[in-house]
Amino acid sequence: MPDDPTGPFADLAIVNCTALLGVTADRTTFAPGTTLEITGGRLTRIDPNPAQAPRAREVIDALGMVAMPGLINTHCHAAMTFLRGAAEDVAVARWFNDYIWPMEVNVGERDVYLGTLVAIAEMIECGVTTFADHYFFMDQAAQAVADTGIRANLGSAFFSSQAPVGLAESVAFAERWQGKVDGRITTSIAPHAPYTVTDDDLRGAADAARRLGVKVHLHASEDLAQAKASVSSRGLTPIQVLHETGVLDAGTIIAHGNGIFDSDIPLLAATRDRVGVTHGPKGYFKFALGPLTPIASLRAAGVPVGYCTDGAASNNTLDILESMRITALSQKQVRDDATWFKSAMALEMAGPESA
Amino acid sequence: MPDDPTGPFADLAIVNCTALLGVTADRTTFAPGTTLEITGGRLTRIDPNPAQAPRAREVIDALGMVAMPGLINTHCHAAMTFLRGAAEDVAVARWFNDYIWPMEVNVGERDVYLGTLVAIAEMIECGVTTFADHYFFMDQAAQAVADTGIRANLGSAFFSSQAPVGLAESVAFAERWQGKVDGRITTSIAPHAPYTVTDDDLRGAADAARRLGVKVHLHASEDLAQAKASVSSRGLTPIQVLHETGVLDAGTIIAHGNGIFDSDIPLLAATRDRVGVTHGPKGYFKFALGPLTPIASLRAAGVPVGYCTDGAASNNTLDILESMRITALSQKQVRDDATWFKSAMALEMAGPESA
Repeated sequence: MPDDPTGPFADLAIVNCTALLGVTADRTTFAPGTTLEITGGRLTRIDPNPAQAPRAREVIDALGMVAMPGLINTHCHAAMTFLRGAAEDVAVARWFNDYIWPMEVNVGERDVYLGTLVAIAEMIECGVTTFADHYFFMDQAAQAVADTGIRANLGSAFFSSQAPVGLAESVAFAERWQGKVDGRITTSIAPHAPYTVTDDDLRGAADAARRLGVKVHLHASEDLAQAKASVSSRGLTPIQVLHETGVLDAGTIIAHGNGIFDSDIPLLAATRDRVGVTHGPKGYFKFALGPLTPIASLRAAGVPVGYCTDGAASNNTLDILESMRITALSQKQVRDDATWFKSAMALEMAGPESA
Repeated sequence: MPDDPTGPFADLAIVNCTALLGVTADRTTFAPGTTLEITGGRLTRIDPNPAQAPRAREVIDALGMVAMPGLINTHCHAAMTFLRGAAEDVAVARWFNDYIWPMEVNVGERDVYLGTLVAIAEMIECGVTTFADHYFFMDQAAQAVADTGIRANLGSAFFSSQAPVGLAESVAFAERWQGKVDGRITTSIAPHAPYTVTDDDLRGAADAARRLGVKVHLHASEDLAQAKASVSSRGLTPIQVLHETGVLDAGTIIAHGNGIFDSDIPLLAATRDRVGVTHGPKGYFKFALGPLTPIASLRAAGVPVGYCTDGAASNNTLDILESMRITALSQKQVRDDATWFKSAMALEMAGPESA
């Protein structure tokens, strides 16, 4: 117990940590020996040069550890922890058609609740404090968020094969949970992808998103083959489809963008204040999907790019630091330039851009 | 204490582990619930269906853990742990010329001993029981191996700028330590690379290797630019230089092989019983070196390929499992085939091929 019980005490003091105080694309500022104090769930003191011992009910000595803002997993299917390792070393079409979708037919509400709890534990362990989720039985995912301390943006995924009930349920879910659990939950409208959802339903999703003040969260331009198939079958790239159906205008979380063409960039740039691309390179390597997301062009056009893990069934982990590491390494290779995508940029993308 | 002190007891029993019992390119065999016993430093019992409690002085419950043969780090500069993180986000030429070599000028014997000890601890933590090392002050590295329980193949690196003393010292080191420390140490002759060592010295290295019954351990065809420079300046690929100087014939550990041409493969195949390529993809990504080592062509020609980490200054870790993981992921991408380089092949390469 402290020797002066009348003084002002923090709930928690973290001492001797190396604190990340600032980051830009070129430079990070870390301060070793920093003291942090948390009171009432908020950071109430950051002192890189502490002159006196902390006054707190609990003190953690964090020597050798780094304190940094919570990380954001910008696209996942959290509940899929129960499908981890279920289909390895197969091409993406077979992965969906022969393995994942047949298994998901049997997924129930309880599976989603428990699978999401496991995912939340794993994400917190990796420094994630906020995640964006796009899956089914999302009331159960929301309950898992409510039952833990994490924050999430949740969207109830739908295919047009379910329509009109799919879109209606996705909208109803977004209305039901937006701002709930002390504001820890926000929502999105979540069509699966332009190749599984009709233009009419995409328009309906965009209209609902505008009306509710939320975003549309969907898969688009996931790889070059799929983007080319869109061009070949209907004369539009997936990003052009999002533009024409008003999805970009409403604001969008785009997973994963490997198949974004140079000609798509101006459309994304025009809505860059409300559209972002979410990048989870491990799955792209695992499924041999190429070319890798044009992060350089997107960032040059001011389009934010964040890290994601996708679901544990395709990514094997929910470790956002691993996504960051593989992104940094592979982007150097893609651009044939070891001096690009510096570690500071890797960190910068994890912060403001992901948010 | 056991209740029957007269019975036969193992030194150590590991119970409830999942044991890797076999691996081929297509298939792994894991047995959960296996009991292992170790006596006198040797594995004396593998029982996948234990009917009775183990009889051992020490019992480790390894539920949830995997037991597998020790991993081999086929090329590193172990002592470079003291240069970890010293030069980030720079191209490979600048990394060498402006950072690493100027710092290495100041490296002393004690640095190598301590740096190697740190490296050995890190490698053991990652499951490595044998490593191949190519560095300076190698008597100190050998002492670190002697002072721990690990096995190593050690080579004293030299440049022809030091010649003739460099080659002579490399040979003397190999003679001095071959088979020492209860056989835990074997040696190599270690010219730095064909672009820093003359053909005469390469011939001398090959002759010495043949005479001592050891291999030549060197960098060659590390990336395409470097291999092309060799063709342009002297009309020979680096692998052709190794052929003409007798290095391939003597038996060779080749780091790293990113710049191996199709036309080099027959030369390597002709000596495949004594030549191997060692692959550490993290550094290739970090330095944007391409194209990635043609593992498919090498394996098809019967040339063994093993994993390495290179030094911690370029790879940041000595985690051979990470090398394995990045290899598996990137090779799928290189071949545009998610069904290739299955997890079983990733494990197979870690075992017999690395040895």
